[in-house]
Amino acid sequence: MPSLFQLRDRATCKYDLLALGEIMLRLDPGEGRIRCAREFKVWEGGGEYNVARGLRRCFGLKTAVATAFAENEVGRLLEDFILQGGVDTEYVRWTPFDGVGRAVRNGLNFTERGFGVRGAVGIPDRGHSAASQLKPGDFDWDSIFGQSGVRWLHTGGIFAALSDTTPQLVIEAVKKARQHGVIVSYDLNYRPSLWKSIGGKKRAQEVNREIAHYVDVMIGNEEDFTASLGFEVEGADEHLLHIDLSAFKQMIEKAVKTYPNFKVVATTLRAAKTATINDWAAVCWARIQEVSRPGNT
Amino acid sequence: MPSLFQLRDRATCKYDLLALGEIMLRLDPGEGRIRCAREFKVWEGGGEYNVARGLRRCFGLKTAVATAFAENEVGRLLEDFILQGGVDTEYVRWTPFDGVGRAVRNGLNFTERGFGVRGAVGIPDRGHSAASQLKPGDFDWDSIFGQSGVRWLHTGGIFAALSDTTPQLVIEAVKKARQHGVIVSYDLNYRPSLWKSIGGKKRAQEVNREIAHYVDVMIGNEEDFTASLGFEVEGADEHLLHIDLSAFKQMIEKAVKTYPNFKVVATTLRAAKTATINDWAAVCWARIQEVSRPGNT
Amino acid sequence: MPSLFQLRDRATCKYDLLALGEIMLRLDPGEGRIRCAREFKVWEGGGEYNVARGLRRCFGLKTAVATAFAENEVGRLLEDFILQGGVDTEYVRWTPFDGVGRAVRNGLNFTERGFGVRGAVGIPDRGHSAASQLKPGDFDWDSIFGQSGVRWLHTGGIFAALSDTTPQLVIEAVKKARQHGVIVSYDLNYRPSLWKSIGGKKRAQEVNREIAHYVDVMIGNEEDFTASLGFEVEGADEHLLHIDLSAFKQMIEKAVKTYPNFKVVATTLRAAKTATINDWAAVCWARIQEVSRPGNT
Amino acid sequence: MPSLFQLRDRATCKYDLLALGEIMLRLDPGEGRIRCAREFKVWEGGGEYNVARGLRRCFGLKTAVATAFAENEVGRLLEDFILQGGVDTEYVRWTPFDGVGRAVRNGLNFTERGFGVRGAVGIPDRGHSAASQLKPGDFDWDSIFGQSGVRWLHTGGIFAALSDTTPQLVIEAVKKARQHGVIVSYDLNYRPSLWKSIGGKKRAQEVNREIAHYVDVMIGNEEDFTASLGFEVEGADEHLLHIDLSAFKQMIEKAVKTYPNFKVVATTLRAAKTATINDWAAVCWARIQEVSRPGNT
Amino acid sequence: MPSLFQLRDRATCKYDLLALGEIMLRLDPGEGRIRCAREFKVWEGGGEYNVARGLRRCFGLKTAVATAFAENEVGRLLEDFILQGGVDTEYVRWTPFDGVGRAVRNGLNFTERGFGVRGAVGIPDRGHSAASQLKPGDFDWDSIFGQSGVRWLHTGGIFAALSDTTPQLVIEAVKKARQHGVIVSYDLNYRPSLWKSIGGKKRAQEVNREIAHYVDVMIGNEEDFTASLGFEVEGADEHLLHIDLSAFKQMIEKAVKTYPNFKVVATTLRAAKTATINDWAAVCWARIQEVSRPGNT
Amino acid sequence: MPSLFQLRDRATCKYDLLALGEIMLRLDPGEGRIRCAREFKVWEGGGEYNVARGLRRCFGLKTAVATAFAENEVGRLLEDFILQGGVDTEYVRWTPFDGVGRAVRNGLNFTERGFGVRGAVGIPDRGHSAASQLKPGDFDWDSIFGQSGVRWLHTGGIFAALSDTTPQLVIEAVKKARQHGVIVSYDLNYRPSLWKSIGGKKRAQEVNREIAHYVDVMIGNEEDFTASLGFEVEGADEHLLHIDLSAFKQMIEKAVKTYPNFKVVATTLRAAKTATINDWAAVCWARIQEVSRPGNT
Repeated sequence: MPSLFQLRDRATCKYDLLALGEIMLRLDPGEGRIRCAREFKVWEGGGEYNVARGLRRCFGLKTAVATAFAENEVGRLLEDFILQGGVDTEYVRWTPFDGVGRAVRNGLNFTERGFGVRGAVGIPDRGHSAASQLKPGDFDWDSIFGQSGVRWLHTGGIFAALSDTTPQLVIEAVKKARQHGVIVSYDLNYRPSLWKSIGGKKRAQEVNREIAHYVDVMIGNEEDFTASLGFEVEGADEHLLHIDLSAFKQMIEKAVKTYPNFKVVATTLRAAKTATINDWAAVCWARIQEVSRPGNT
Repeated sequence: MPSLFQLRDRATCKYDLLALGEIMLRLDPGEGRIRCAREFKVWEGGGEYNVARGLRRCFGLKTAVATAFAENEVGRLLEDFILQGGVDTEYVRWTPFDGVGRAVRNGLNFTERGFGVRGAVGIPDRGHSAASQLKPGDFDWDSIFGQSGVRWLHTGGIFAALSDTTPQLVIEAVKKARQHGVIVSYDLNYRPSLWKSIGGKKRAQEVNREIAHYVDVMIGNEEDFTASLGFEVEGADEHLLHIDLSAFKQMIEKAVKTYPNFKVVATTLRAAKTATINDWAAVCWARIQEVSRPGNT
Repeated sequence: MPSLFQLRDRATCKYDLLALGEIMLRLDPGEGRIRCAREFKVWEGGGEYNVARGLRRCFGLKTAVATAFAENEVGRLLEDFILQGGVDTEYVRWTPFDGVGRAVRNGLNFTERGFGVRGAVGIPDRGHSAASQLKPGDFDWDSIFGQSGVRWLHTGGIFAALSDTTPQLVIEAVKKARQHGVIVSYDLNYRPSLWKSIGGKKRAQEVNREIAHYVDVMIGNEEDFTASLGFEVEGADEHLLHIDLSAFKQMIEKAVKTYPNFKVVATTLRAAKTATINDWAAVCWARIQEVSRPGNT
Repeated sequence: MPSLFQLRDRATCKYDLLALGEIMLRLDPGEGRIRCAREFKVWEGGGEYNVARGLRRCFGLKTAVATAFAENEVGRLLEDFILQGGVDTEYVRWTPFDGVGRAVRNGLNFTERGFGVRGAVGIPDRGHSAASQLKPGDFDWDSIFGQSGVRWLHTGGIFAALSDTTPQLVIEAVKKARQHGVIVSYDLNYRPSLWKSIGGKKRAQEVNREIAHYVDVMIGNEEDFTASLGFEVEGADEHLLHIDLSAFKQMIEKAVKTYPNFKVVATTLRAAKTATINDWAAVCWARIQEVSRPGNT
Repeated sequence: MPSLFQLRDRATCKYDLLALGEIMLRLDPGEGRIRCAREFKVWEGGGEYNVARGLRRCFGLKTAVATAFAENEVGRLLEDFILQGGVDTEYVRWTPFDGVGRAVRNGLNFTERGFGVRGAVGIPDRGHSAASQLKPGDFDWDSIFGQSGVRWLHTGGIFAALSDTTPQLVIEAVKKARQHGVIVSYDLNYRPSLWKSIGGKKRAQEVNREIAHYVDVMIGNEEDFTASLGFEVEGADEHLLHIDLSAFKQMIEKAVKTYPNFKVVATTLRAAKTATINDWAAVCWARIQEVSRPGNT
Repeated sequence: MPSLFQLRDRATCKYDLLALGEIMLRLDPGEGRIRCAREFKVWEGGGEYNVARGLRRCFGLKTAVATAFAENEVGRLLEDFILQGGVDTEYVRWTPFDGVGRAVRNGLNFTERGFGVRGAVGIPDRGHSAASQLKPGDFDWDSIFGQSGVRWLHTGGIFAALSDTTPQLVIEAVKKARQHGVIVSYDLNYRPSLWKSIGGKKRAQEVNREIAHYVDVMIGNEEDFTASLGFEVEGADEHLLHIDLSAFKQMIEKAVKTYPNFKVVATTLRAAKTATINDWAAVCWARIQEVSRPGNT
């Protein structure tokens, strides 16, 4: 997307992309089910981090992640995974562990595959995580964006829903990014369970609407735009059996008027027929009149 | 130990033993280390529960456990393990899960084996567990001890250290046990990390001293008696390289005078030479003058 | 099906269901084939027991199994699986092992998955099993059905085909069940290999016809009704490529006239297109005029 | 041992050694115990066959095995192992399988490692095996020893203890071997559990004494010579904690007088200190005056 | 195909088929990808050998392989697999290993499964293998075909492409086979990467055209006939999405005129829709007028 | 060792240490043996690289490796391991793969554990590797040492023995290191098999003696100093059963006189009693009069 964005010059930037978010240890029982497992494979995962990892390992870009872990063996295992992922760990903050997991923990996520009529299952166990306790001031954005140099910041609505402090950190980060000419992408990723005990959908909309003013590339499906930003869409398929884009397109039209800073709006769309057979589609809107801007990379 | 205790008649009791405590999911990387694992075997474990499991599977006794889990797949996996252990689950309480692990969780314990000069490692991740939120009133002890019938209650100092409410529950349970003629054993098992944020050693001693008045069989090594009950012992081997029982025996003499209700005091003792070579010993004191009591089972 | 059956009151019954049958150790080579395996996963399984396990773990009912094992480590492994399955083991009989497997054994079942044009394979190794040597008098049905209390007895044609003594035990059990108001279900499950050396189809029909008089819920497909009970059905699809119920329905009409005690007749039906793609259907006939009976649970 | 035996010329023999015995599928739970295994590694094994395999894979000799399997997937898995072992399968007899395991089976052996004070455990499940049903006439020894050519026959007391027919087969084989100039070795390997239901120690001695007259190399420890051949030895260490050869040597003296056909008597000796620490020794007596015989290989 | 070929009498032949080719150790990461594997399953494989193995294990024929390995543990592992495959190893040549893998190696092949849009991947690592260094004179064909006796020789275009010496060995072998009345089959199996550094397609055609004059059964698809033998075919489906045989049939007509020695021309044909869904077909041309030849087996 | 070396200032250096050497994929059959493995665990390894990995993961230093891989999936797997090891990959050179492994490969190393009297085994398969083809000019040392900044270069005698070009590259590197004030350590690590076909011990000594003039920290045992540098030592224990340092110390005295540039000479020493029980020692000589040098870090 060369001409849509005024990406900073690679020569002046240590990283092509910085992801801001939580990384959890994913526990996966393989072919079987969690409730009778005797063995779990482990992986790392996190909506915001996954973007940094994919860009590094599939496309060879230089990426880093800003996050925090409790300083224990589980945190070190997560670091081991991030290293393997090729994502730089210099902005990982290490919080002293209390030896119990009361004050601070590392986030876990138990997941199992669906099969036929049985859906896939995810059991997040991420309360009180070091990442959820991140707050404004924890990262020196001027040093990161200014001195080290970053071309793109990616963060999202899951991280913003982790606590009372992460929304403030996200807002701090996206404002600083804008200041330093760093392109900002944001994945709305609305999760009711995360918002429930910290203000619900009302609070989610307050947070996300403020963040949205600093976003260049907004990612989200119909439900995300509706729940996180308060837009309304008619005729959505509740049962997720068909992919119909017309209503969604209308809503995007509204959104890009409300937020003239959006340069791209995109999402993938899935219609699950069974746990193993899914239809996939993707939609991407781009503010192409901006193509004529001079001076792009 | 037939004549030391007036055990209730087996015919009137559904269970030979009830354990009160937390059960954690144990994650075990096998031969390797947690910090570079890609697979974990899982097991269940918990100091109090392990007694109930061992009595069932090695000695064929009927046992049950009083505990609580968050109602999710991880809790159900723990239930699966308890069933396999042959320990009855009727006194497992199921707490609604919040979908995040902020309000309530199931306790986890990452453990790895030592090797040569490198010690074994345990990383408990048990804060905010359903079991730690158990409180007086959660179990109907009159129904359990009276109607169903239980011959022996086993609980311990780890469970009493989980929160501000578990000490009260332990005290409620041991008092009720005494009332119903149920023998009480208690494993002091002092863990500084657990007490640190809920009152420290001072609070540990308050709690354990109160509980001790209702205990028939007290289990603990020198450190446990010192830290949990405030006894002092001279000449303990800090480096745990030798097993010397004389000082410990003196301390037991003091303890059984302070607590005339103690009928047995016992512990296992380990001197770790390397992570793989350990010397083991065990000591057991019994108030044998009680042998003459009539009417024992 | 609340009003079809006069189920006994749950309050007076220790178990919702008791299964009578054999449980085998299932050896499963996973993705590969038995004939070049170097590792087997193990599970427990048995047509009658599977019903008790499913009701316990999927629906939370209280179930038990009446069976027998040779008293050795393999038998104890089977017990370990049954415990994990949540099925009570109090009616498991333990037969002394001869150290060789000549006089008594535990049943095994090697099974492998089909793939494409290659069908699934099962190699039972169940001769001389402890369960096959069960005989009338081995269980105290009055104590089980009367004192402990059972609401439903499930057994079937596999167990009845194990030896010369198991048919008599089944007949004893279903008669006693009827006496105690216990609903009886029976899965015909005709297996020519089992009957071959103990009287063939002729003996199978003698046995199953006698049992049928005490059955409330009869389970079986066309082949089961034909081979086990001697009914005839026209136009069955030998190659199992299509599911056509009309002929089967006619046969059910005949069967429920012959056996007025049948309250429900049901089965699942599978048409295997390849080893991995199957069409499934199910049919269930119910004697609905019985709905008006008063006093049902 | 070139000059002790008049080994047949290699050029005229298809096989250096033929083993006659049963081969079982060995199921091995690895580090854990059978009674809570969820996975078994499998291997093949059998006292007589192991000699043929070792000579082939460690010393490169040409060997074959005379045995029988039930013709099913388990039998084919055993064949797969024998092929991997490099032992020729042309004298494996395939018995039709009855689909149940009543009439004929393949022998299994569940084994687990000991640990510290817990001894190793083996649970043979070999009753009714195809090998145990082998009988005189099943192999054409004149063709095998005469036409194909075999230099050495190895068999043993386990195979001879499998049934009422295997002793006769062993006697037939060793007589024919002698006739064809084939050296015979025999491993006494006394197992009370095998003999118990087919005549006990009395029958064991009848059988082994007859066989002994045709044996060149007799293998067995003190207990084997005592129980299988009726010799007596004084001062044996019942607890197997020390290896003392003097009594054993005296007994060998007696044996080689009774059986002047013995050219070598040998055994390994183990003193088990714990399940993991054992002392090993070996003893070998040879009738060395035979060295002077001319014409040896 | 009894009457197409004058197969030699089984009674005079030690082997039904001899395969001449390389066998590689196949390293397989299972469900995952090579580039992040931590574990590989291993198998043996090789186009020519696979035919010998299949005939032995699926159809019970007696087969052997003529090949070479470096004498080290990896070579011995390959031998272990060939033994398991039931293929005789007497014509395996063992080349001294240099301890480094500079002068001689054993061929390896890393392979991973495709998934959806991602194709399967194979990474051969077979340069400098012992098999690629085989040359005329390495096998005593008169002894193999004449004295031991072989009914059918199978070799192919992969082996002929391994080096400058293997083509000469193949030509030597097929000529000698013809001399001894051994039927010859040849799988063209054109691989551009193998020919690239030893003469390219031009050299491939020289070699294969010479070999073709001694072949009875020629195996190859359109690309094989075109690239290896220089025939031209019109309208081939480059994208391999459909199977259209008409053009291929025309080309076969031309081929069997050019090479009147061809008695059968055959191939399997695959149209890959995705990495997991493929359409399969097969085509076989036979020179049926030869049916009338007298004296066939 | 702060005052022995004038280490460059950390602030001006991107890396604490750069390792120059080959990294191989290590294939490990676990508990069993290579020759009957069906599964291998994989790891990365290489004498020079291991130092960089250990400093990064155990001591938190910043390290990188200068090496080369063939550009294929196996090379990418090695990269995946290096990333996990936390060692920077910017100086990894990627050589185009020929699709066969004739022109260029990635080095492999099959290794198995010893057991009791059976020694451990390693089967390197590293001929024609990309790393062995590295040559002077392949790395821009002025940019690496000068601009990026490196404090310590570690390389060794295995890498110098890989081919005719790697010695020249090592000499180029150590000279440049000296020029830029980079401390140089060198592990002699003499391997006869590597030198055999490229000039033998004579060439080994030529190469190592030249390199030795630029080394600050020389690592090697008695055999290394003898074979690689031509020093002689008396009374070495050929059977490696005892560790006797006196002769070794005398030889070090000679060596540090010959090479006044050596500041440290060190090695670990192992006396193998069995494959599993080893005595270990270490020896380190330091030129301590240099402690008085001013201006050290």
